Amino acid sequence: MKRRNLLKAGGVGALALGASASAKAADDKVFNWKLVMSWPKKFPGLASSMDWFVDEIKKISNGRLNITLYGAGELVPAFEVFNAVSDGTAEMGHGTPYYWKGKITEAEVFTSVPFGMEAQEFNSWFIEGDGQKLLTEVYKPFGVKPFLGGNTLTQMGGWFNKEINSIEDLKGLKIRMPGIAGEVYKMSGASPVSIPGAEIFTSMQSGVLDATDWVGPWNDLAFGLQKAAKYYYNGWQEPSAFMEILVNEKVYETLPSDLKDLLDIMTFALNQRVMSEFKRNNAISLKTLIDKYKVQIRSFPKEVILSFKANTEKYLDEFANKSELAKRIIDSYRTYLAEQIEASKNRMQIEQYRLLP
Amino acid sequence: MKRRNLLKAGGVGALALGASASAKAADDKVFNWKLVMSWPKKFPGLASSMDWFVDEIKKISNGRLNITLYGAGELVPAFEVFNAVSDGTAEMGHGTPYYWKGKITEAEVFTSVPFGMEAQEFNSWFIEGDGQKLLTEVYKPFGVKPFLGGNTLTQMGGWFNKEINSIEDLKGLKIRMPGIAGEVYKMSGASPVSIPGAEIFTSMQSGVLDATDWVGPWNDLAFGLQKAAKYYYNGWQEPSAFMEILVNEKVYETLPSDLKDLLDIMTFALNQRVMSEFKRNNAISLKTLIDKYKVQIRSFPKEVILSFKANTEKYLDEFANKSELAKRIIDSYRTYLAEQIEASKNRMQIEQYRLLP
Repeated sequence: MKRRNLLKAGGVGALALGASASAKAADDKVFNWKLVMSWPKKFPGLASSMDWFVDEIKKISNGRLNITLYGAGELVPAFEVFNAVSDGTAEMGHGTPYYWKGKITEAEVFTSVPFGMEAQEFNSWFIEGDGQKLLTEVYKPFGVKPFLGGNTLTQMGGWFNKEINSIEDLKGLKIRMPGIAGEVYKMSGASPVSIPGAEIFTSMQSGVLDATDWVGPWNDLAFGLQKAAKYYYNGWQEPSAFMEILVNEKVYETLPSDLKDLLDIMTFALNQRVMSEFKRNNAISLKTLIDKYKVQIRSFPKEVILSFKANTEKYLDEFANKSELAKRIIDSYRTYLAEQIEASKNRMQIEQYRLLP
Repeated sequence: MKRRNLLKAGGVGALALGASASAKAADDKVFNWKLVMSWPKKFPGLASSMDWFVDEIKKISNGRLNITLYGAGELVPAFEVFNAVSDGTAEMGHGTPYYWKGKITEAEVFTSVPFGMEAQEFNSWFIEGDGQKLLTEVYKPFGVKPFLGGNTLTQMGGWFNKEINSIEDLKGLKIRMPGIAGEVYKMSGASPVSIPGAEIFTSMQSGVLDATDWVGPWNDLAFGLQKAAKYYYNGWQEPSAFMEILVNEKVYETLPSDLKDLLDIMTFALNQRVMSEFKRNNAISLKTLIDKYKVQIRSFPKEVILSFKANTEKYLDEFANKSELAKRIIDSYRTYLAEQIEASKNRMQIEQYRLLP
C-alpha cells in the first residue's frame, strides 16, 4: 500500500499536508534490485566504489531502492552482464561497452579509442555532447539504458619482454590486447593472442606471450606483472576507458521520478569518485613500480606511433561504414575530439612547465 | 509534526511498517534554505549548473530540502559569501577560497596554485587525499563546512596588449591578476592593479591596464575581451580553479542523515557537471576566438616561465611559514603534486601523439 493511500486510510491526510508544508509524500514502494558486474566485487578501481554506490542509494532513498551487488560469475559471467540486464535477469549492470562488441557492432568505440579522448573530454562528450544520446540509441533495441559508471583514466601501453625499436619488431609479436588496439596491432603486423586474464601471468613467464596489456599501474602492481615482464611502455591505445552503469529500461520506467533522478545523480557521483580513486592510486603505484621494483619505463619510437595512428584512422573509417548509426558516432566523436585537441594545448604547456627544474 | 509521530497519532504505525517493508519512513521536516553566490545567477560555467543543483536536491528530497539561490549582490556582495554562511545569514554558499584570503590566511592555495594540480588531480587530492580534510580544518573556527563545487579547468594566461618577450618586458606591466599569480607578477617586477571586473574592458582600451586575466575562452569570449586586447597568452598560473559549496555547520547538523548524504552526493555530481560544461564550451569558444576573431595565441618565453616558477616556489615557502596548518597544507599539496607530475607523463605523451599528422 502506498503511503498516500495509507494516510488517507488512517484519516490523517489533511494533517499530513499541514505538517509537511511543501514536501510531497514520497512513494513508499520498495524496489529490491540486482546489479551484476563484469569484474569481481571490490576489484580495485573497477568495483571498489560500488559498495558505496549502492549504500548511498539505499540511504538517500530511505531504503526504497535496495541494490544487491553480484561480482563476475556470481550470477552471470563477466561478458554476459549486458544480456542479463537486457533480459531482466538483473535490473542493473556495471561493465564496459567493448565487452558486448560481438553482439552490438557500434558499442566498442565507447570504451576507448586509440589517440582519442582522455577522461574529462569523454565525460564532456557523454554529458554535454552527444555521447550518452548515441549510446542510448545503440542499446535501445535491447531495452537497456546506459549511464556514466567511472573511468580508468589513461592506461599504460602494457608490459613487454621484448623492446620495440622499430615497426619490424612488431612482426609476429605475441600480445594480449583487447579492443580496437588489438585490431591495430594486427594491422601493424603483430599476432594478438586471446587468453583469459587468469592465464596472463604464466603465459608471460613461459613465453606464450611477449607482451600484455592490463589496466594501469594500480591494477598491474596488484596483479604482480612487474615480476613477469621487463619493460613497461607508455600508452597510446586507451587515453581513457569508460565504464557504464546499465539499467533495464522497463524496470527503470517503474521507478517514481525521485528515484530516477537519484539514480542519475549517483552515476555522476560514482564517475567522479572512481576517477579520483584511480588518479591517486595509479600515481602511488607507478612510484612503487619504479622505485621499489626498478621497472623500466619505455616509449614506442615515433615510426611505430605513426603506424599505430594511421591504422587507427583506417580502422575508424571502416567502422563508420558498418551502419548509419556507426557513421554518426564516429563523426560526432571525431568532431568533439578535434575541438578538444586544439584546446588541450594550453593545459599541455602547463604540464610541460611543471617538469622544468 | 514528524511523519513518524503523525502516523502513530493516526494509529496506523503498524500498518505503515508492514506496507513499506524495509523502507524506513523519511523524516518529513521541511528545510527552506538560502544559498548565496559570489557570481551572478546563471553566469556561464560558474553558476550555470546551480539551478540544476538545487532543483535536483528538491526533487530527490521530495521537497524536503528547498534551496533558494541568490546571485552576487542580491542578498550579500560577492566577497561576503563566506561571512554570510558563517553567521547564518544564509545556510549555504558558492564561492572560491581565495576570495576570503583577507580573513583566512590559509584559504587561497585551495583555489589554485601556479604550476600546480590540474582539475582531476585536485579533485583526487580533495576526495582521496587530505584536501577536503585540511580545508574543513581551515574553516572550522568559522563554523563552515566546505564541499566540492565545480572547477573552471585550466585557465588561459590572460589578454595582453603588449608582447612579453623577456623578463624585462614584465617591468612595470599594469596587469589585473588575482590570487597567487598576482603576487608572483609583483615579485617578477610587474605592477598588479586591482580594479573591479566591470571596469576591465574600458581599462584595457584606455591603457590603464596593459593586460588582464579573466577565466577562460568561454567566459572571455562572452565578456568580449577579444575586442580590447591583441594577444591571448597560454596559461601557467591556474592549472585549475576550484569552486566550493559552503554549508553552515550548525544548520548542517540539523539535517536528517539521508539529506546530509544527498547534499554530499550532489556536490560530487555538481563538480562532474560543471567540469563537463567548461570542457565543452572552452573548446568551442577558443575555436571561435581563433577562427572568427583572429585572436593571436602566444606563449611566454622560457626565461619568463622559469622566473614565475622560482617566485611561485618562494611564495609557497613563505606561505608555509605563516602557521602550522599552512605548513601541513603546503606539504600535503606538494607531495600529492609530485606524485601526479611523475604519473602525468604517460598521458602527456598520448596528448603529444594526438598532435602528430
